[in-house]
Amino acid sequence: MTQPPDSSTLHALLADLPAEIVTTDRDRVLGFVRDESRFTAHDSPLAVVTPRSTAEVAQVLRAAHRHGIGVVTRGAGSGLSGGANAVAGCVVLSTHRLDRILEIDTAERVLVTQPGVVTSDVRAAAAAEGLFYPPDPGSVAFSTIGGNVATNAGGMCCVKYGVTGDYVLGLEAVLADGRILRTGRRTAKGVAGYDLTRLLVGSEGTLAVITEVTLRLVPAPRAPRTVLATFPGLLQAGDAIATIASGAVVPSVFELLDRVTLRAIEEMEPSGFDDEIGAVLILQSDSASAAEDSDHLAQLCSAAGAVDVAVSEDAQEAHLLLQARRLALPALQARGDWLLDDVCVPRNRIVELLRRIEEVASAEQVTIGVFGHAGDGNMHPTVVFDEADETGAAAATRAFDRITGAALELGGTVTGEHGIGRLKAAWLGRELGDVARDVHRALKHAWDPTGVLNPGVMGLAPRPVRD
Amino acid sequence: MTQPPDSSTLHALLADLPAEIVTTDRDRVLGFVRDESRFTAHDSPLAVVTPRSTAEVAQVLRAAHRHGIGVVTRGAGSGLSGGANAVAGCVVLSTHRLDRILEIDTAERVLVTQPGVVTSDVRAAAAAEGLFYPPDPGSVAFSTIGGNVATNAGGMCCVKYGVTGDYVLGLEAVLADGRILRTGRRTAKGVAGYDLTRLLVGSEGTLAVITEVTLRLVPAPRAPRTVLATFPGLLQAGDAIATIASGAVVPSVFELLDRVTLRAIEEMEPSGFDDEIGAVLILQSDSASAAEDSDHLAQLCSAAGAVDVAVSEDAQEAHLLLQARRLALPALQARGDWLLDDVCVPRNRIVELLRRIEEVASAEQVTIGVFGHAGDGNMHPTVVFDEADETGAAAATRAFDRITGAALELGGTVTGEHGIGRLKAAWLGRELGDVARDVHRALKHAWDPTGVLNPGVMGLAPRPVRD
Repeated sequence: MTQPPDSSTLHALLADLPAEIVTTDRDRVLGFVRDESRFTAHDSPLAVVTPRSTAEVAQVLRAAHRHGIGVVTRGAGSGLSGGANAVAGCVVLSTHRLDRILEIDTAERVLVTQPGVVTSDVRAAAAAEGLFYPPDPGSVAFSTIGGNVATNAGGMCCVKYGVTGDYVLGLEAVLADGRILRTGRRTAKGVAGYDLTRLLVGSEGTLAVITEVTLRLVPAPRAPRTVLATFPGLLQAGDAIATIASGAVVPSVFELLDRVTLRAIEEMEPSGFDDEIGAVLILQSDSASAAEDSDHLAQLCSAAGAVDVAVSEDAQEAHLLLQARRLALPALQARGDWLLDDVCVPRNRIVELLRRIEEVASAEQVTIGVFGHAGDGNMHPTVVFDEADETGAAAATRAFDRITGAALELGGTVTGEHGIGRLKAAWLGRELGDVARDVHRALKHAWDPTGVLNPGVMGLAPRPVRD
Repeated sequence: MTQPPDSSTLHALLADLPAEIVTTDRDRVLGFVRDESRFTAHDSPLAVVTPRSTAEVAQVLRAAHRHGIGVVTRGAGSGLSGGANAVAGCVVLSTHRLDRILEIDTAERVLVTQPGVVTSDVRAAAAAEGLFYPPDPGSVAFSTIGGNVATNAGGMCCVKYGVTGDYVLGLEAVLADGRILRTGRRTAKGVAGYDLTRLLVGSEGTLAVITEVTLRLVPAPRAPRTVLATFPGLLQAGDAIATIASGAVVPSVFELLDRVTLRAIEEMEPSGFDDEIGAVLILQSDSASAAEDSDHLAQLCSAAGAVDVAVSEDAQEAHLLLQARRLALPALQARGDWLLDDVCVPRNRIVELLRRIEEVASAEQVTIGVFGHAGDGNMHPTVVFDEADETGAAAATRAFDRITGAALELGGTVTGEHGIGRLKAAWLGRELGDVARDVHRALKHAWDPTGVLNPGVMGLAPRPVRD
């Protein structure tokens, strides 16, 4: 059933755009109204638009700008902060038809792609040429590269290889008024003008709509050695994290799973983690000294109180272990309702963060699964509760807020990789302070003076600079 | 002799600032009117101010803002683009009294410093703790970390370790109106809000005055193996560059010196480069497989036509070789007047760039020394000429422009690491195009609406966004 164009605004929009790229069918639109976050608001858009080219994106933005319609851009909708949630009367711009890898230059190690390509397809295309695109967010198999850039996505690679933004050389993006901007370069270095590329990376659709991404690739890494260390409790694992994080050997993977998470994974897909295990660290080294490095990492785990440490060079075993790690979130989600946090603290404050999370779980009488990127200090404490129980939902929200607040108190940030979106808009102001917040508003105003791009995300209304 | 305060503006400024931080003595002021660039304009400032704290920087900016006085910020004045040249009636804000390293956190591998600290002192402080701050611009022994951040300085490390901006976690900066802004974080990751840190890195004093820098350090590297390869001509070296740059082994140093540069170095400090050598590549590997890697790099050089290839693990020898490389610019400067370029092209276009530089030298009948960061495609063609000869100076300028234009034609950038400053303000527009230029102006307006910060640099007058 097609939703009748029931407003003059929709009429005007439809008149400006090719019919093939506008969807108003209520049932189909429903699949585009929110991302994967919980506790974030969403509302009914006017329409979903699915441009097939940069020129069509520009057409959409010119029309939206002219008629004062908000534009919420989305990739796969796998975000966890509400950054792609529709607002009332907006258009949702889905990039899923911008799905071509445009070029791979193997000599220069550059890949140019449209934003709607799934990230694992980018990685596979690089791998087919013997090259490596490191960023690997948990959603790598279904999120799109455009969404990864818009949120500056992370993943397990970051401890050694850095985040998405570290691989973005340049962008094509459409401005709020429909003009097409090119930023950055294809060269290894370049300092001509302001770093517009880095400003757009992580800007969550609030400054421009990304239509093309130029990525830097690196040579394929060596086969890794994997260390699996099991600990009686979270705090011993925390000690190992602190020691390894300040040591000279930088692992290429450095992940933590706690007891709650391990049990959830076991329930979903038995992986051999028994009930006695309090926490697990998964470490890899893919350097030329991987053998020596992995032995060293194993020794540090033992010294911190690991009850069992295994080093393996079996690729299949390593793959299964990382697959088990990737089940952490879906496995916790399967246990009931959930509220996922994404705090990041200085690495030497991780033990203290873990201690505080235990306190919060105990004080609020909630179950909290803790997993995440230990080597970066980036943890995903996940509150699991029963949605039907109002008291439980309130306690979950309080626990979430207390953990986020603890990260700030420990000198950390409210979001390591998921972004602010709508979920943490109120927290952004607390982290930034008044002056940085004013600068954010002035930047928003400079790029999007009428505020059509992703209205409400980051809590940013454009405001002109004081002068 | 003290310059009498001959204008009401100077009177007003002096009334607002502590006398100890204002210098109007003509002779002393003269040492602060320009950087090390050639062919860039400079004029007489009202005064030089030397704040001793962030609060005093804020005081200077409030006063400048109130009285409409331009503020040109400078570190050591070693820049090569005119970015620190005084304009008529401005104040020059020198950061040389903001010269303290405030903190080194060895567990977290974070160093916090004021901007006026010399970069080699930052590196030494890190090294004293067994840690490494990679960026090493040619000026490392005398440039300041604040200037390095303001220009996003590079150096020999970049091919493996990246540029200054890759190590800046956060900043404190004073806005045009005197408000104090904090950006970034101390954590390994963080995506809360826009990347103001990266926007300030490389902004050449046009958006804010940097008063504190939080740097990320890395574990100290292993002792490197060094490869010295000599080639009969530049084009054989270019072939070796192209092959190595697209190969799987990433060197930690990858530098080129041509015949003109080698002769100049020999004249300044004999280093054993004989007259027959057409070009030299200096490569290092500091990875765990340095022995294997350096042998592989040596073989690639031989295959490309090197006449002599030596591999060494002697630290002293390697140090002397890199010292000789660092003499390239001073040695060329000693040969007469000079005009230094800083173009960067995709690595697989280096051979073509070198070919075009030879053509330009021949067509304009000028001597051009070529050296630079081969692994990044970042070359410093340096035109050497006789200042007294008007025809020669004109030919030098034409040669410079033709080389810069060639870099753009080859898909490169007009500046790989020296910045736009005043030297390349006209080129910036050509590289950016109209839309990116408009965005630059809107950003300048958002940060500095009255245009007091480094007026004229990048050719940017603030202009409000269209809406």
